[in-house]
Amino acid sequence: MSMDELKRRLGQVSDLGAAAGLMSWDQETQMPGEAARVRGLQMATLEGLAHELFTAAQTAELLEAAGEAESETDAAILRVTRRDHAKATRLPTGFVEEAARARNEAHHAWLEARQHSDFATFAPHLEKMMDLARRQADLLGYEEHPYDALLDEYEPGMRASQVKSVFADLRDRTLPLLRRIVAAGDAADYGVLTRSFPPEAQKAFAWRVAGEAFGLKPEFARQDESAHPFQTNFSRSDLRITTRVEEYWPACLFGTWHETGHAMYERGVAPRWERTPVSRGASLGVHESQSRMFENLLARSLPFWERYFPQLAEVAPQVAAGLDAPGLYRAVNRVNPSLIRVEADEVTYNFHVMLRFELELALLEGSLKVHDLPEAWNAKMQAYLGLTPPNDAQGVLQDIHWSAGLIGYFPTYTLGNLLSVQLLEAARKDAGIAAGVERAEYGPLLAWLVEHVHQYGRSLTPTQITERATGRPLTADPYVAYLHGKYEGIYGLTSENSA
Amino acid sequence: MSMDELKRRLGQVSDLGAAAGLMSWDQETQMPGEAARVRGLQMATLEGLAHELFTAAQTAELLEAAGEAESETDAAILRVTRRDHAKATRLPTGFVEEAARARNEAHHAWLEARQHSDFATFAPHLEKMMDLARRQADLLGYEEHPYDALLDEYEPGMRASQVKSVFADLRDRTLPLLRRIVAAGDAADYGVLTRSFPPEAQKAFAWRVAGEAFGLKPEFARQDESAHPFQTNFSRSDLRITTRVEEYWPACLFGTWHETGHAMYERGVAPRWERTPVSRGASLGVHESQSRMFENLLARSLPFWERYFPQLAEVAPQVAAGLDAPGLYRAVNRVNPSLIRVEADEVTYNFHVMLRFELELALLEGSLKVHDLPEAWNAKMQAYLGLTPPNDAQGVLQDIHWSAGLIGYFPTYTLGNLLSVQLLEAARKDAGIAAGVERAEYGPLLAWLVEHVHQYGRSLTPTQITERATGRPLTADPYVAYLHGKYEGIYGLTSENSA
Repeated sequence: MSMDELKRRLGQVSDLGAAAGLMSWDQETQMPGEAARVRGLQMATLEGLAHELFTAAQTAELLEAAGEAESETDAAILRVTRRDHAKATRLPTGFVEEAARARNEAHHAWLEARQHSDFATFAPHLEKMMDLARRQADLLGYEEHPYDALLDEYEPGMRASQVKSVFADLRDRTLPLLRRIVAAGDAADYGVLTRSFPPEAQKAFAWRVAGEAFGLKPEFARQDESAHPFQTNFSRSDLRITTRVEEYWPACLFGTWHETGHAMYERGVAPRWERTPVSRGASLGVHESQSRMFENLLARSLPFWERYFPQLAEVAPQVAAGLDAPGLYRAVNRVNPSLIRVEADEVTYNFHVMLRFELELALLEGSLKVHDLPEAWNAKMQAYLGLTPPNDAQGVLQDIHWSAGLIGYFPTYTLGNLLSVQLLEAARKDAGIAAGVERAEYGPLLAWLVEHVHQYGRSLTPTQITERATGRPLTADPYVAYLHGKYEGIYGLTSENSA
Repeated sequence: MSMDELKRRLGQVSDLGAAAGLMSWDQETQMPGEAARVRGLQMATLEGLAHELFTAAQTAELLEAAGEAESETDAAILRVTRRDHAKATRLPTGFVEEAARARNEAHHAWLEARQHSDFATFAPHLEKMMDLARRQADLLGYEEHPYDALLDEYEPGMRASQVKSVFADLRDRTLPLLRRIVAAGDAADYGVLTRSFPPEAQKAFAWRVAGEAFGLKPEFARQDESAHPFQTNFSRSDLRITTRVEEYWPACLFGTWHETGHAMYERGVAPRWERTPVSRGASLGVHESQSRMFENLLARSLPFWERYFPQLAEVAPQVAAGLDAPGLYRAVNRVNPSLIRVEADEVTYNFHVMLRFELELALLEGSLKVHDLPEAWNAKMQAYLGLTPPNDAQGVLQDIHWSAGLIGYFPTYTLGNLLSVQLLEAARKDAGIAAGVERAEYGPLLAWLVEHVHQYGRSLTPTQITERATGRPLTADPYVAYLHGKYEGIYGLTSENSA
């Protein structure tokens, strides 16, 4: 009985979250501009009521009264809910409110600081964010390192020490590759990436291929435009992705397929966990493994373009003129060290992430002072990518994360990249899947992902998913090998032992 | 203090309502089809939580503790909230749940019955609806007639006896006019109403004119398509109207301007009542007076088409070919007795409503048995419009209202029609407004409507609004005179004393 009552309550919390999510999606894609002020109040009410309902004494009583679960489904619900509830109740209301106010102020200060490329005005807010992060880590508790408590919010069970070790390995084995690529020079005509491709045709092509190649169908999903692309969903039958159209047309295409990866993960979670806390992706890292797999490992592969180049040529003849599938493949895999993370390619992207991870860890420990951050940023940027930002807007102020109190978030991007290749490698041990991938027919691969990753939702931890699906813990090996194989080919480099 | 606490709570109730409203709008205009089942659960949660919060003991305590208000704004909030709260708590949860279940079953039975034109399968559900309506009237209480308690939900303060008397007057004075019009024959080439008008051009023209003529701007409003047109809003800066595109292009144009009238009413409510129960239109009748004024009194007038015909000719040259403003004016004012209410013109529309009012009143009183309803319907249809439905789908089963338990709702359509003319007549006593209307420049009229109707929201009753704005109670006189003046002109009839 109390399990039923608990599920009813979790359903309500989930429904309030879905409503807040819809309000947010609507705000980014549909809402008239003047509605913003009241919409903010409305969303705050929904989030507040959801939090109240979830942390209420009655929820704790129901969790206690539920005792041992009678089914595996219920066991997962209890396990995940107890964990979430314990974390949610460990932060006192006073702290939560102070943090919300500080984040709000920091966000506005960051917008201002970035606009004027003036780090000094943002610095006190970043200090406040770090102070709150340390206090939050203490309130949540940890065994090894305060960073672990923060990272756990996004990547349950992962520790800073593990990240450090995997990242060091990755860095040591891919920095030489990057240097060789840069030395090799251009591998294609990159002018094709900004050839004329009408906005409606970009969106339509991206959306059609999202359905045909990756299974995202209008019966349970839709595509809209927004300033910053994202995926959100209000049930596994109500998936929404957004895209942005630029002159640089790969942004729309690969961005759409990236969000498609996120959406298909949520689609694959077993329906028995509907409207419970189990019913979403296991972590940001596992989520990113799916989006990166679709965006990079599949959509930036040669077989993909051998299959879809003719369709592209039909809808965007000006882009395709004088080009063939291998030429397009080389163009969309341009390696180009740049200052901006969100514009980075597969080889340089992880250096942007490592730099941020190393800096936020040092800030949290206090070994780096906020005052010295810009200098430290620029030094690492020079060391990794050979570039020095001309100003802080294009350097330390470029990302929204720290101003939003998101400390411990950045590593999940690279953890996702590593996991994407480790998963694909494991899946390809099945000959049918491997053959499908070589023909850009992803049905068998999608089924494998549902079976080994998606269906579990949050009922397994990221570590459990990784080890069960691939037979070993997360490692940089497959990713390093993938980068070498792919880019030595594209840039005509002599194969090097990447071990 | 308790007033602040009360406002906080009312804000939460309002926000939950806005979220449910957005979910409903999304369902009708954006949502992928397969999402419907879970969306139903989500909306039920939001509506349930809003009802719980509003009827909670704490709300009653806050209402009591608030005592006398310190401002006119607060006084209206207390008055309206106390009234709503008393009504909401008079219906026991058991009754509300029984009614919701019965409505759900009745709705499905109605869909089925209409599809097969089989009244018998719907009859037991209609009996249940009438039984629930009688019980609801008893629970809510009334002085004269149980119908009053139901009508009060949609038209606060209005009584069946008043409706009877006004409707009888209207019927006696417009039925002869209708007969004369029918005898006169066609007044224009009605083929123009289905000439080719591309869907996108219909929507764009309707939306542009909604902004230019009636003030509905993209900064605070948007237009979408849906199967059944409606207006909804989540704040006065977040108005949403929908339209439907048909071969019969006036459906899109006049439908859009009808919903624009609803939207501009909500836009005009004073901001000081934001997120309180005062912050919406006073009643369905007053709402309909605004939508009908825009749709019929303004957009179906000769000055309107003298102004907008050139724009129409530009976007729909095939429609305008060989036509001029007076010709179009006569065509869009075709009087044509038909079986279907939603397709009815200004002269016949009210007979559809009177018929329904008379029948639902007789059903509620028990003087008419559900079993005898189709026969009674057909007899009245013959008496008023000279037509007999070939089947019940085009007769008694055509409207959704009764299957949804909406008894007492129909009269508000005609009350709105009557009030629309009474208000416009009062406004036109101002020479500037009258001159503006004759040039289809509605700025001064809109300002008058905001001042005399919109701004009050629910802080005045419909009767108060009518009497203060027009100097007398609701009467059929202005509407009868309007119909005679307009249609005697269009159909070339000798002017008759309409008094």
